[in-house]
Parts: sequence; structure tokens; C-alpha cells
Amino acid sequence: MAQYNEAQKKFLPIPDDVYEDRIPFLLRPENVARYEDGGTVYILDRRCYPHERRFERCDTYDDVARAIEKMVTQSGGPAFAVACGMTQAARLAKDLAPDRAAALLEDARARLARTRPTNNNVRYISSEFLHYAREALEAGKDPETVLRERTAELYRRDHLINYFVGNFAASLVENGQGVLTHCFAEASIVYTYLALESQGKTDVKAFCCETRPYLQGARLTSDCISEIGFDTTLITDGMPGYLMSRGKIDIFFAGADRITEKGDVINKVGTFPSAVLANYYHLPFYAYGLGADPGSKTAEDVEIELRDGNEVLYCLSHRTASRNEKLHGFYPAFDCTPAEFVTGIVTDKGIYPPERLGEYVRDGAII
Amino acid sequence: MAQYNEAQKKFLPIPDDVYEDRIPFLLRPENVARYEDGGTVYILDRRCYPHERRFERCDTYDDVARAIEKMVTQSGGPAFAVACGMTQAARLAKDLAPDRAAALLEDARARLARTRPTNNNVRYISSEFLHYAREALEAGKDPETVLRERTAELYRRDHLINYFVGNFAASLVENGQGVLTHCFAEASIVYTYLALESQGKTDVKAFCCETRPYLQGARLTSDCISEIGFDTTLITDGMPGYLMSRGKIDIFFAGADRITEKGDVINKVGTFPSAVLANYYHLPFYAYGLGADPGSKTAEDVEIELRDGNEVLYCLSHRTASRNEKLHGFYPAFDCTPAEFVTGIVTDKGIYPPERLGEYVRDGAII
Repeated sequence: MAQYNEAQKKFLPIPDDVYEDRIPFLLRPENVARYEDGGTVYILDRRCYPHERRFERCDTYDDVARAIEKMVTQSGGPAFAVACGMTQAARLAKDLAPDRAAALLEDARARLARTRPTNNNVRYISSEFLHYAREALEAGKDPETVLRERTAELYRRDHLINYFVGNFAASLVENGQGVLTHCFAEASIVYTYLALESQGKTDVKAFCCETRPYLQGARLTSDCISEIGFDTTLITDGMPGYLMSRGKIDIFFAGADRITEKGDVINKVGTFPSAVLANYYHLPFYAYGLGADPGSKTAEDVEIELRDGNEVLYCLSHRTASRNEKLHGFYPAFDCTPAEFVTGIVTDKGIYPPERLGEYVRDGAII
Repeated sequence: MAQYNEAQKKFLPIPDDVYEDRIPFLLRPENVARYEDGGTVYILDRRCYPHERRFERCDTYDDVARAIEKMVTQSGGPAFAVACGMTQAARLAKDLAPDRAAALLEDARARLARTRPTNNNVRYISSEFLHYAREALEAGKDPETVLRERTAELYRRDHLINYFVGNFAASLVENGQGVLTHCFAEASIVYTYLALESQGKTDVKAFCCETRPYLQGARLTSDCISEIGFDTTLITDGMPGYLMSRGKIDIFFAGADRITEKGDVINKVGTFPSAVLANYYHLPFYAYGLGADPGSKTAEDVEIELRDGNEVLYCLSHRTASRNEKLHGFYPAFDCTPAEFVTGIVTDKGIYPPERLGEYVRDGAII
């Protein structure tokens, strides 16, 4: 049963149909990752969206794992894909002897957990769903059915969490202001604009960095925000400084693939430069996140994923760079913004300055 | 007659054939902008180089002006293209009555001067060449021949100036260090690497930002540096912060389309963020430039060119962005790095901290 804190109560009651018909195509549960009868999973391919509405068909959890590795889905998407992948494993497990079922489920968990190193959601969700599957088997229940219900619940909970996250974030913005964002902060940034709309702040101007090399800003974030109906300006990753110098930006929001206990924010590479610039111009920088990641005391505890450097030499499969032999690309997928540049973390329970982020877990609110 | 100062004397004598066979294809005078008998001008098309070695044919100075506006050539290229365009006008002028010749030359100057607003070279060179053409006509000389000689002299002088600029810059770098650069600082950055080579610092690692939207870093800078033979790493415009945080960068060099008397550096958008990050990490940032621009006291005196925002929605003519109606691009071509973030200006006469940049003009050295 939900139990809300004082800050959350400002945004109650949650309308039953909140945002239902306003969710952009990209974020609708049936598109993010869909488990179909028979165990096939379909994942919206974010590498070509919105130019193409293509779904990656995954017949096994190994297919799902490879789709995550190849960035078919990213940001918040892998959590749901992992849930579906674990459900595929549960479907196979139910007809096996207990020890073989246990081994298969553990194999699925391990395979899905090692798809991406920086954001821990793939590890949290795979472990959580392994636990649910074991429980179901022990209780003589159908683990596939149980995990499908758990996946639906994950979507519902994500929706409610982001209802609050979005409303808290939107409360930091005044109508007419300019909001910078980098990469694609998934439901957090999208629900911020849905909340801005419901709070009547429809003249907010969105500025999105394109986010090379994968262009999540150009293809996903700016697509969702403009689909909702806000005036959306796309800029290259080198332009936030110019915009701030001209007074076009009032606040900077970004996602967080990991937050350390100190309040350092690990997010898509390019976040850090804009946070430093925001600091220079005395503009607030808020990251979205559900508290600190347990076990990540400082940035040194966080592995920054190094992806294939060749990605930097191309844009949407077209070669951009010279082909000289001595030239190569380098692609660190994330950077770390030290807590000194972070104004606060916007969570489902409220907004916490970095030094008080530890209070998040002690806060009694439950969604 | 050349007259060198103490700093320059360190790099004397200039070998007769200095760098002759080492100049990358892109920067060879016959490719930058070539005036042919009969008055046709060919300009290497930097928009598709190095993927294609295409030359834009310009039959008139208006063609040359349009080529500059369309970014067929950029950075240091327009100065030479303007010289060739003025020579085309001189060719027409020699058969006209004096008043019509004067009017035509003035029309060419004005047309070429208004091609780009931020970098003043198009205005300086067009005015200078107008003066040479008038002098030639008054002296009964063939103005076309005179301006062709002046263009050759401009290339020679640029070569000598950058011999010193490159050597001064290279003297700031130790072998094995990492050098960041943004966009394409033309001969200044290329001669820096030629000087590094001649100074025996061949283990310097080059890091080039790709420089969206036109990708000058991916296509021009990294091509030239790797062509010379240095290990060259291409990164996206959001990655310098990560590299600095990992100790990969020791120094940051960039060009300057304009330098104010205060020492503010106006250069390709994206320079400013890296300069602020360099400052945070106590890394030096040096801009290349021949002193301050007279008449540009502060950044407020400098017009920042706003190019077509649609450019940001594409990469090499392929659509990158969503096509939603509410989405548009914005493209400020330059940003301003305040003098507080500038360690020094590397000139042909030596290196000046921003607050002593005024001494550049009083320095007696002549190349």
C-alpha cells in the first residue's frame, strides 16, 4: 500500500488515467519491451528511431542480452528488457527438474547482468526477477505467469515513480524558462514535460544536446518532448556554453546511470561539461535518480563503460572521419560530474542536495 | 626584409625547404584556393573532404563569395579565396574606364567582405587587395598580375608566420603528452605538429573533437595530423571532460576567429566548454592568433554568426533529428571564451598572456 510523504502529497491525488494518452510512442510499455504469448520478446530499436519504427525480435534471453549490448534499447529500456528476458528463462525453467531449472535461471541472470557495466539496473532487475522465479517455483506457481505480472508491475511502478519525479522537477521550473538536457533521461525527462504541461507551464523552452555518437538527444529526447507539444531546440554537444552565455538556459536536467554516496553523478558522456558550465553561470544542475547506488561510495567505485571507438568515426552508419591509418576513435560512454557541481537529485520522494542524499533511503515514503 | 625578435631567433635559420614535402594535401596552396590563367578559381571543397577530393569551380568573385558563405572553405581558407576573388575582379577591371574599374573593384571588396561576420580576415584581405589593385592601376601596371603575385606572397607569408607559430606552440608541449584541439585551426595546428616532429616530439598524442555539425575535427584536423604521422584520437564534442578527468590531456590548443583586446577568444562553438574544463583541471589553454583584432575591445563588439539551424538536424546530409513539427535546430557558429580561461595567445612573435596581448603590435619583429 502506498504511503506518501509531505512533499509527495502536494501532487495527490494521482488521477487514475494520469498521462495515459499523453505518453510518447517511444515510452509506451508495449514498445519499450514487450513479452508475447509463446515467449517472444519485441524491443523497439532505439538505434534507428524515430526514422524507422523497427522492433528487434528476441527469441531467447541471450537474444535480449545481445540487444542490450548492441544498444537496441538503452537508458531506462534495459531494465524492462531484462525483466522480459528473465521471463523467457522462467518459461523454459518450469518444465525442468529443480536443479536444472535453478541453473538455467542463474545463467539467465548472469548473462543479462553482464550486458552493461555502468548502470546497475540490469543487475538489480535480473537478481530481483531471479528471486521471484525461485519463489514461484517453490510455491508451485507458474514462474512465467508470475514474472509477466511482475513485469507489468514494474511498468506501473515506474509510471508512478516518474509521476512524482516529473512533478518535483517541474516545480523547479518557471513558465517561460529554458531547460537544457543531455542524452535521454527516459521517463524522468518525459514526465517532467508532462508535469510541466499539467502545471500549466506550457511556454517552457526545451534545449536538447544531440548526444553523439548515438544521437539519443536528436532522435529520442527531442522527439518525445516535441511530440508532447513543447517548443524544442536541438543543439550540438558543443553549444550549451554559448546558450548559457546568452541567458537562454535557466536550469539543466540530466539522468544518472549511477549516483555515488557522495552525490557524484555518472551519466552519458557530455553531462559533466554542461554541469561545469552551469556552475560557472550559477545555473542549477539537477540529476534524476532514486538515491545513491549502494556500494558506490565514490566515483572510483564506478566502472565507466568503454564502447567500441569506431562508433565515433561514424554517424548513423555513415563514415564521418578520415580513414588515415594513424586515426582511431575513442568512446567512453559516461562521464562523472563531481558532487560539487550537482545542485540536487530529483527523486520520487523529493529533491535532495548531494550531501543529504543518504536520507533518501531512510525516508519512509513508499510508492 | 625580415627582422626577428629574440624569441623567434631560437628557431632560425628557417630551412629553405621547410616542411615543403610534409604539408598535408588539404593545406597545399594549390588546393586551398587556386587562381588559374583565364581567371577561374578552384577551391578545395572542405564540406566533403577527405571523403571526396572535389574542387568548387568559381568563374566570378560572386561565385567565390557564395562558396565562402556555403562553407566550401572555412577557417583560414576564406582569406586566400578572397585574394583570388579580388584577382578575378582585377582581371575584369583592367579593360574598363577608371571610374567603372574602381566601382567594380569596390563591389568585389564589399561582396567578399560580407561573406562571414565573425572572422575579419575576409574584410582585411579584401580591403588590402583593393588597395593593391588601385595602386597597380594608378601605376599603369596589370592589376591581375600584381594581385596574383600578392596572393603568392600571402601564401608564403602565411607559411613563414605559421613556421614560428607552430614552433612556439610545440615548445609548450613535452614528448609523450596529450594535446586536445577543437575544430580546425588551419595551418597553426598543422604547423604545430610539423614543429613537434622537427623538435623530435613524435610521441605526442593528438585528441581531436569532431566538431559538429560540420565535422571539421573528424574530417580536416584529424586527417591532417594523422597524415603527418601522429597518433590521432577522434572524440565527440562531449568527451573532453572525461579525457581530462583521466589525465589524458596536458594542453588544449584552439584557433581564434577573433581575439578581443581583453584577450577573449572567439572561436568555433565548443571551444569555450573545453577551456572551462581545462581551467578546472589546471590545464593550459592556448589560442592561436596574430594579436587582438583592432576595434574589438570586448566580446560585446563581436558579432557571433548564426548559421542555418537546420544544419544541426543533419550530419553529412543525412537527417539525424526527429521530424516533429515543434522541433527545430539552432546553430551559433562560434562561442566566446573569456580571457580568464585563456592561458596565452600563441602568435608568430611569441606567446602573450591575455593581459599583455597589446604588446604584440608594439613588438618590432617583422616576417
